[in-house]
Amino acid sequence: MSSRLEPMDEPLLIGLDWGSSHLRAYLLNRAGAVLQVRTSEAGASRLALEAAPDARPLLFEQGLRALIADWLLARHPMIACGMVGSAHGWREAAYLPCPLDLRDLQRHLTHVGGSDGLELWIVPGVSFAAPGQTPDVMRGEETQICGVLGQRAQWAENVLVIMPGTHSKWVRVVDGRLTSFATRMTGELFDVLRTHSVLGRSVAHSDQFDQDAFEAGAIASRNTRGGDLSHLLFGVRTLQLFGTRTPAALSDYLSGLLIGHELASGLALAPHDGPLVLVGDERLCSRYRLGLRVFDRDPDAALVDSGPLGLFGLARSRGLI
Amino acid sequence: MSSRLEPMDEPLLIGLDWGSSHLRAYLLNRAGAVLQVRTSEAGASRLALEAAPDARPLLFEQGLRALIADWLLARHPMIACGMVGSAHGWREAAYLPCPLDLRDLQRHLTHVGGSDGLELWIVPGVSFAAPGQTPDVMRGEETQICGVLGQRAQWAENVLVIMPGTHSKWVRVVDGRLTSFATRMTGELFDVLRTHSVLGRSVAHSDQFDQDAFEAGAIASRNTRGGDLSHLLFGVRTLQLFGTRTPAALSDYLSGLLIGHELASGLALAPHDGPLVLVGDERLCSRYRLGLRVFDRDPDAALVDSGPLGLFGLARSRGLI
Repeated sequence: MSSRLEPMDEPLLIGLDWGSSHLRAYLLNRAGAVLQVRTSEAGASRLALEAAPDARPLLFEQGLRALIADWLLARHPMIACGMVGSAHGWREAAYLPCPLDLRDLQRHLTHVGGSDGLELWIVPGVSFAAPGQTPDVMRGEETQICGVLGQRAQWAENVLVIMPGTHSKWVRVVDGRLTSFATRMTGELFDVLRTHSVLGRSVAHSDQFDQDAFEAGAIASRNTRGGDLSHLLFGVRTLQLFGTRTPAALSDYLSGLLIGHELASGLALAPHDGPLVLVGDERLCSRYRLGLRVFDRDPDAALVDSGPLGLFGLARSRGLI
Repeated sequence: MSSRLEPMDEPLLIGLDWGSSHLRAYLLNRAGAVLQVRTSEAGASRLALEAAPDARPLLFEQGLRALIADWLLARHPMIACGMVGSAHGWREAAYLPCPLDLRDLQRHLTHVGGSDGLELWIVPGVSFAAPGQTPDVMRGEETQICGVLGQRAQWAENVLVIMPGTHSKWVRVVDGRLTSFATRMTGELFDVLRTHSVLGRSVAHSDQFDQDAFEAGAIASRNTRGGDLSHLLFGVRTLQLFGTRTPAALSDYLSGLLIGHELASGLALAPHDGPLVLVGDERLCSRYRLGLRVFDRDPDAALVDSGPLGLFGLARSRGLI
């Protein structure tokens, strides 16, 4: 059904990145390029809270129509990833187990029908339960990974992808197979500690980034090889007590400690000398780039958002377009 | 001024453990035994918030009189430790630097006078700033340590004291000298994560202690040698998602992870094969005892509160009694 003859400004596919807190919709052309983006706060967690389980499909459909009613008129194929496929989403798209051949992912899309002939395909999440290890899950990041591999095919041979965020994901791909992954709740720890712990009194928000303080934090975490975080964290308070750094600098020091903890732990547990790719918010990725330098590592690329390309690739290999 | 002839039920000294959130007053006899205890919520942090700096002494004196006006009539010597001596306390008793000979501590008490001839001696806190390491501070724990050594003199030769709590303290004493210490904010992390993070949805309070879950958490932290805490924490959510453990069990699993993180980090950074003493709340110490077993360590003693004996020893060596 691929329509190679469509002009480049012609929409061919609707891609949805439907997470806990936001719904982001992309209108894509035949090359997988984004023609339009729209975002709303109809996140899956909020919708799930608002309705009993059997009323949820209607609520999700309304949330979608409220954002892109006009796009839906043309009846483009539509594919979604993220929490929309969780047990509290529109329809559950059960986790696939890791290790997982990413070329198989398209075979496991879950079909959802709505009113007026609305059709949606949901990408499943991935679970990981290696013996003796902490189990883990992802929803949405598997699609971002597909987008990373779509960007440069040779990365499929052997790549480490770090996706910084509230819950950072570290993903290894070897020979096109997702072989392992781990979530590190770095962003959430930063927010929670800054807002609700005793450290809140020691740090202050500032728009000015203090690189020296950030690097000092990352170095402190590197020096303990990711260990003793609960002690390093208390040091934020002591440094403020001693007047060593300003509260604004200590916010970046805390950020450096936590990102350094993530990097020290992740790099030690998943030694890897192949390509390293960052995917995420540009400002956050630049912090990770600085942090990686403390560990003598340099990312091969930093991508802002590989989700749309991932959705596009899955739709194409499934034959939706 | 020691009055060896006083009967054992005769009070000789008032000791105050005056922390951030509570004021605890002890009436002690000539052997350092506690005859009476009283507690109020006139903690130093609360009082500091209620008054401008120059109004604080009056407020602290009122807080004290509200609790033990009757004890004060007899004009016993009075000695205090804790946040009462901080920059926001009644009077600042400046930190002494570590390493510190604990036999010298009594020479550095800060004298405070109040109305009606009220007199109080405040024990200074201790600061620690080793090059290249996170600085640290304590206030009150130095006095608890004096109490530990007062309990068994040979511990002064070489002991590791762990004081579990909101901000756990790890203290090494060698030849009567406090040689190093570290704070680990384990208790606060537990509270903050349970109350304010995504993990709050995965854990539930229960009065039933789930030892198996607690030990599994401690083992997970042991297996990463105290590293990768931000990943292990996310595992609490995944385990709940997978239905592996009940929310009540996951609360103890989280506790095991955090105490295990503290123990793995502390034992690795301060290798020590001499006596190990726990000081703190009985229920909390029993968790640490279980946690230590995961690391093949067994404490030589668990003391509930060594503060009064520490205050008594300092008052005696200073010649106040």
